[in-house]
Amino acid sequence: MEHKIWFEPLGLRVTSSDGTTIFEAARNAGIALNSICGGRGTCGQCRIRVLKGEVSPLSDREKANLNEDDIADGLRLACQARPLSDLKVYVPPASMATGQKLQLLGTDEHSELDPAVREYEVHLPEPSLENPLPDWENMDESLVKGAGLERIRPDLPLLRHLPEVFRSSGPAVGIAIRNGEAIDVYPADRPLLGAAVDLGTSKIAVHLVDLRTGEPVAAQGATNPQVAYGEDVMSRISSAMEGSGPELRESVTDTLNEILGEMTTDLGQIVEMTLAGNTAMHHLFLGLPVRQLGQSPYVPAVCSSLDIRARDLGLHIAPGAYVYLLPNIAGFVGSDHVAMLMAAGIWKSGDTVLGIDIGTNTEVSLAREGAIVSLSCASGPALEGAHIRHGMKAAAGAIESVKITGKGVELGVIDDAPPIGICGSGILDTVAELRRNEIMDQRARLHDHPLVRRGDNGREFLIANADASGTGKDIVLSQGDIAQVQLAKAAIRTGINTLLHEAGISEDEIEEVVIAGAFGSYIDVRSAILIGMLPALPLDKFRQVGNAAGVGARLALLSKKHRGVALDIARSVRYIELALHPGFEQELSRSMLLP
Amino acid sequence: MEHKIWFEPLGLRVTSSDGTTIFEAARNAGIALNSICGGRGTCGQCRIRVLKGEVSPLSDREKANLNEDDIADGLRLACQARPLSDLKVYVPPASMATGQKLQLLGTDEHSELDPAVREYEVHLPEPSLENPLPDWENMDESLVKGAGLERIRPDLPLLRHLPEVFRSSGPAVGIAIRNGEAIDVYPADRPLLGAAVDLGTSKIAVHLVDLRTGEPVAAQGATNPQVAYGEDVMSRISSAMEGSGPELRESVTDTLNEILGEMTTDLGQIVEMTLAGNTAMHHLFLGLPVRQLGQSPYVPAVCSSLDIRARDLGLHIAPGAYVYLLPNIAGFVGSDHVAMLMAAGIWKSGDTVLGIDIGTNTEVSLAREGAIVSLSCASGPALEGAHIRHGMKAAAGAIESVKITGKGVELGVIDDAPPIGICGSGILDTVAELRRNEIMDQRARLHDHPLVRRGDNGREFLIANADASGTGKDIVLSQGDIAQVQLAKAAIRTGINTLLHEAGISEDEIEEVVIAGAFGSYIDVRSAILIGMLPALPLDKFRQVGNAAGVGARLALLSKKHRGVALDIARSVRYIELALHPGFEQELSRSMLLP
Repeated sequence: MEHKIWFEPLGLRVTSSDGTTIFEAARNAGIALNSICGGRGTCGQCRIRVLKGEVSPLSDREKANLNEDDIADGLRLACQARPLSDLKVYVPPASMATGQKLQLLGTDEHSELDPAVREYEVHLPEPSLENPLPDWENMDESLVKGAGLERIRPDLPLLRHLPEVFRSSGPAVGIAIRNGEAIDVYPADRPLLGAAVDLGTSKIAVHLVDLRTGEPVAAQGATNPQVAYGEDVMSRISSAMEGSGPELRESVTDTLNEILGEMTTDLGQIVEMTLAGNTAMHHLFLGLPVRQLGQSPYVPAVCSSLDIRARDLGLHIAPGAYVYLLPNIAGFVGSDHVAMLMAAGIWKSGDTVLGIDIGTNTEVSLAREGAIVSLSCASGPALEGAHIRHGMKAAAGAIESVKITGKGVELGVIDDAPPIGICGSGILDTVAELRRNEIMDQRARLHDHPLVRRGDNGREFLIANADASGTGKDIVLSQGDIAQVQLAKAAIRTGINTLLHEAGISEDEIEEVVIAGAFGSYIDVRSAILIGMLPALPLDKFRQVGNAAGVGARLALLSKKHRGVALDIARSVRYIELALHPGFEQELSRSMLLP
Repeated sequence: MEHKIWFEPLGLRVTSSDGTTIFEAARNAGIALNSICGGRGTCGQCRIRVLKGEVSPLSDREKANLNEDDIADGLRLACQARPLSDLKVYVPPASMATGQKLQLLGTDEHSELDPAVREYEVHLPEPSLENPLPDWENMDESLVKGAGLERIRPDLPLLRHLPEVFRSSGPAVGIAIRNGEAIDVYPADRPLLGAAVDLGTSKIAVHLVDLRTGEPVAAQGATNPQVAYGEDVMSRISSAMEGSGPELRESVTDTLNEILGEMTTDLGQIVEMTLAGNTAMHHLFLGLPVRQLGQSPYVPAVCSSLDIRARDLGLHIAPGAYVYLLPNIAGFVGSDHVAMLMAAGIWKSGDTVLGIDIGTNTEVSLAREGAIVSLSCASGPALEGAHIRHGMKAAAGAIESVKITGKGVELGVIDDAPPIGICGSGILDTVAELRRNEIMDQRARLHDHPLVRRGDNGREFLIANADASGTGKDIVLSQGDIAQVQLAKAAIRTGINTLLHEAGISEDEIEEVVIAGAFGSYIDVRSAILIGMLPALPLDKFRQVGNAAGVGARLALLSKKHRGVALDIARSVRYIELALHPGFEQELSRSMLLP
């Protein structure tokens, strides 16, 4: 028996074959749910909620790993539950894996389907010697008379294509119109797709959507190939300034063509693309100069939203298609942040909301009384595992959670593999646990402790010894590593405090903290509070929204209204240059202290 | 002493060095005036009229070659007159050479300067950390505030270019705006050019114009490189259908890039192009399919005017530039005819005007009471010298005029060279002279005559014998050649009569006959009347307007109003399919008779 399973809010549909679990069905479809035990029902990480349909009864392992509240709440373990009918399943952000697979989840907003590209079906009269109507005028007449449109302009590739489509596909022809321009023509029964892209510094996530229904068709991710030119934004800018700009641009274009080619048999069916990314990714993608972006006063070439012809960018989607780029706010607050403010509903919240995108640059916004103030802080790559002795990306073998008890160190390792390094959330946990257990003081100095030892470069804390490690070597967090984390947390907290100070409010007045982005979705908020990176608010005030930038790009794909919203956000946000803010340095040095 | 000479209506300015004649000054600047004697003052072909300024007194040779009326009319021989001051000189159509150099002359209409591309000079404030305005928004703000424009869209290459232009050329930046889109940005003192192209089946003529003043900058012509794929439209269509479409397209693009490159040091200064041509040339240039154009019911892919990005066509002018293509009327009445109807003022004439473009296909329009009816007749290549035994193009050595007297045959040969063949106007003259001298009857049968002999394929008339010929062989016009001319004249006259019949008028009611195109400008109208190709109206009713299509393209370049006029003409013209017209075949066979 096959069953269909809809995964929400990913919007992906999967077919399960007989007897497979929801976990296996998800994995077969490329959706990576969290799992430490590898699907054996012991780690309790792959929690999902069945919204609709029937599943197998609760197993003993589920009873052991879910408490009464969880069960009352409808939670199940995906590795235990088997579908007995078609299902609709909700995957909470905490159950999405951080491994090689990308997190493509977000907080969807309901959106009216009103895409920039509208489709019309036209039945064309046959031309004759008595009435030798040119093909385009034949089409135009039908649109003007049949659909009541104003006269429209045809794009060149459409004209090149029209005579053949008209003569080979019979009189029923589909035509895609965008902003008064006909951009594609095709047999009326062909699919009509749109692509939403979240172009991250590290990762590219692409959603393919049916523009007729708004339904998702496929989702896929890849590493941003520009990492070969530098891990972070600044090294990419340097690389572009040294002449690699065209290669940087083409590498992303090629990857997008490749991903899209894997997602659909005919790239030409994709008639619109939307894209969100930070300002540097945006500029490099468009081939805009970045020199002025990389040096004071850090001026973008452009911030407004743009409609760029896909063919001018080397994208192999429909020749007449456009790429809509969401607007940027400033040199270091890009359209991904705008997309997040939109997708997470921060722009229209009447509450006092703090929105944070944690990364090498961390963008922070404070929404209050309908106005938004934003800034960027140089938090550095430590929280992404870079510039940390045993740091690594969130991939198989990465220590992603750490707990220090009287008995030793308890580790959570991605894919339940032997640990080979430690990723951002694990680093954050370690620093928090060191402080909680008073192995480290407020100034982040390691004290004497059985697991603290003298290393080559000062003190270090032993997280896993050689025996337990997958590399056969000790895994440690050094005093120097801790200083990197301390700098990151100070930068972020300085940003938050500066916004609070500007608004003249205290942290207690914050009603909600939205944490977006892949990294922000996997951190233990308690750890972030413990080291003072985030304000010490009740946990229920925090909302980890996952890839909200991708959701924002999808909203812009599905509704013109949201393009207007994005532009309103970008234009109305007040940007603060953090380094110019009075009291910045004092605030930064104060924030270096741990609570 | 150097003097400036303005040549009208070419609109070209030339500097003459000390002592040179007007003829030499023109030749040095690439303007080819008619001359058989090579500037020795004996042929009387290089007549010009001095409109303004002082020239050397009349020479004896001028007195010998100009009659009293000519002299009273201000005519001079360009090879005799030397400038004594700056001059303005008018070149009558009859004085323009038909040789390798192209005729670029037309009947200019006065036009208000209102090009599609408007320029603004903007002074941008320097961005600072306190006010890190993105470059584009900096520009946009200045335009909105300074020039009161609506917000405009930037083209991608402009954005790629803007940061560097802004930082290298100082705060005064020129920006070219077209239809709400910013298409180019440059140092404010850079030239701003436009190009008008007449894309003929045989020849390409290009005019370069200063868009700030409307003044011409340069003019140049070249052979249409597609002749390598076939002389006439139908063989080009066949060639494209067999797969040569891309090569046909690229050959023209390459030639345009080349011509423009010879006319200006920086192609990027050309921010707009307009183009007129027949429907097949139009389609091949755009890479549109021509299969449906080449077979009944001869349907164009598009007739409306188009704005196509130059870069989408492979043109190396300013990356943001557009090519405006004048609208077509039907598969065999193209935008060159629309341009001619506009440039010659036929569209707004209240008179009953016949407009004719003679070529392999001859387009004929009848304007009457504000309405225009058009058709196309298959006149064949005979009048261009093709498919005629000793036929050739109008180049050096071609017999271009023929007179049969009692003493023999008087020839006019291009460049006064020994004759090597006979071009269209010479062929037409010969047939007319044969009929005038009754060497040939109404059915075009050659009678006995000292110069009529039996050749390999029937009778033939000896135009020049081997002794006089540059090839060492006789030059003849055969009975078969004459039949070709007869077919051509019958086709054209059938078209004219069909239009008169449709309008319910007789030929006497025609108030003006406008003959356009290179060939039409050089024929002796009397010969055309003599063989019955044109109606027997008084000679002063005929106006030979030269390259009116090129002038139409220039009008569209200089004023948006004329683009509207062109579209109005194309939309309002009633097209008749000649072959479907009742009585077509009877009319055609009747027209085969010579008067």
